[in-house]
Amino acid sequence: MTQDRTVGDLGEAELLRLIAERVPAHIGGSLIGDDAAVVPATDGPLLVATDMIVEAVDFDLEFSSPQDVAWKAIAINVSDIAAMGGRPTAVVATLSMPSTTGMDFFEGFLEGLVAACDQMDCKLVGGDLSEGSEISSSVTVIGTSDTRPVMRSGASVGERICVTGAFGASAAGLEALRAGLDRSAPGIAEVVERHLRPVPRVEAGVALAAAGATAMIDVSDGLGLDLLRLLEASGVGCEAEQEVIPVASGVAEVARLTDLDPARAALGGGEDQELICTLPPGVEELAARACAEIGVPLTVVGEVTDGAPLLGGEDLRTKEDIGWQHLKRR
Amino acid sequence: MTQDRTVGDLGEAELLRLIAERVPAHIGGSLIGDDAAVVPATDGPLLVATDMIVEAVDFDLEFSSPQDVAWKAIAINVSDIAAMGGRPTAVVATLSMPSTTGMDFFEGFLEGLVAACDQMDCKLVGGDLSEGSEISSSVTVIGTSDTRPVMRSGASVGERICVTGAFGASAAGLEALRAGLDRSAPGIAEVVERHLRPVPRVEAGVALAAAGATAMIDVSDGLGLDLLRLLEASGVGCEAEQEVIPVASGVAEVARLTDLDPARAALGGGEDQELICTLPPGVEELAARACAEIGVPLTVVGEVTDGAPLLGGEDLRTKEDIGWQHLKRR
Repeated sequence: MTQDRTVGDLGEAELLRLIAERVPAHIGGSLIGDDAAVVPATDGPLLVATDMIVEAVDFDLEFSSPQDVAWKAIAINVSDIAAMGGRPTAVVATLSMPSTTGMDFFEGFLEGLVAACDQMDCKLVGGDLSEGSEISSSVTVIGTSDTRPVMRSGASVGERICVTGAFGASAAGLEALRAGLDRSAPGIAEVVERHLRPVPRVEAGVALAAAGATAMIDVSDGLGLDLLRLLEASGVGCEAEQEVIPVASGVAEVARLTDLDPARAALGGGEDQELICTLPPGVEELAARACAEIGVPLTVVGEVTDGAPLLGGEDLRTKEDIGWQHLKRR
Repeated sequence: MTQDRTVGDLGEAELLRLIAERVPAHIGGSLIGDDAAVVPATDGPLLVATDMIVEAVDFDLEFSSPQDVAWKAIAINVSDIAAMGGRPTAVVATLSMPSTTGMDFFEGFLEGLVAACDQMDCKLVGGDLSEGSEISSSVTVIGTSDTRPVMRSGASVGERICVTGAFGASAAGLEALRAGLDRSAPGIAEVVERHLRPVPRVEAGVALAAAGATAMIDVSDGLGLDLLRLLEASGVGCEAEQEVIPVASGVAEVARLTDLDPARAALGGGEDQELICTLPPGVEELAARACAEIGVPLTVVGEVTDGAPLLGGEDLRTKEDIGWQHLKRR
């Protein structure tokens, strides 16, 4: 019967598990399934992250400009490098599109790539173009790290779980666009910008790694889901509180004008590109000061335990709406 | 009027020119448009190559197994690393597909990735999955080089133009599949294998770089077109002879049974993943011996000049059927 199953029957998590099973252990012993691959080099390991975006799945040209699309393709990868405590250095990108695609798209996309690389202090060094029936782009970002790269798997019982910034902005921005809210209105403008032009937490990632973060992940699919991934990779549980999760400013304004549930947007909205990390007891104040110096709030949302992954007493493994899984049929 | 132009109006070469114009000079001064990006590392430069394959454009599941598709996605990138004189080390891959895609495809693809990495002595270290309306995959290969990477741009007047192996096998293999020829017949089996499972010339690339190759490129889009790219990057011309271009065994057999023109297949068929390089006078014998030791024929096909890029007296810039351009409307 397995012959007739589709990838949609399994969903991303199962497919990734299958990959981890099938792909032999590789260079440096880093694991498939971390934010970026650790490739050893002479002077400390290289970091390599790759992510793909596809029209209608990851972006909608009704809401996003071609520049925004390219920006996001770079940003989600740089965010993966940030989640290892690294800095991006080099970028390659592929782009496929129908041959009828307008040059305005192509030029805008290119402009967005360059702008994002510029802003994120890395260089576009190569790529490939192809024809396709839809627009899609894969980006690979290579990075380096001054410290040992921070994996998802290093969290230990008793450590604090901390998050940078605030959550729900990207989901609220998308909702604002879909609802046709005034994009220039206070609050709305902010979340729309966060949705279209996320800025990865590179400096915060470096600061947290230097402060001694034991595990780290970026929030791309949802705070709940990405926290669960970190905990599962580390083989630990947690006690975390939903009320202490910082909700981004502007989310309340969108919630007032639409059906958006702020708490749900913060927990499962995804694409916020904030960081979740674990810190040994006593280190969180030092880390918070280091983050404050670069203007990034750091909030303790819970503690690592040897029990279940609990948020507000509910098990994250069975809780609804904690994040987005690619390819999973809903 | 430029507003309404499509990418198909320009074609790949023009789009690449546009990219080279718009993307600022980057790390290490390597140029957008070479086979692989040169990213400096402490112990010699890293090489990074990326290429995308899309269903119906680059492969047809009627002819290629999922394993073949994955193999080719890796091979075309490893070939780019080989064209710099490097060896592949790490690979990341993205894959998008409809959620209705069968698990047999997914598992076969994964198997092909692993088999190719294994055969080509590199490791798959990461990737990304996404949903899409068609199957497409982008692969990035990172490599290293013992010598200074061999660029396309290093050819000088008076040097010999050499090619590894023989040409036309991939085009003949595709034609054999399309014509429904017996895939197990002598000659046919060989070219079909070359089409479905190309093996990049890594050891030959390393040997040619060590022997002093001044410029190198792999033949992915067509011998004529890729030779022209090398010459243009070097700012030189050539006098080359079509008759001395080695035609792969099996091509004649396919030509006997179909409309295939062997000379045209060898010159413009593409996907042969052979190498073209330039060698200073006197070095070609040493290089040929080094290649012979690893079982790879090396053939001198012409000489670098300061004139036009001539093949059999015809200008390659205006000659028809010298290779394939992505996205160009035909």
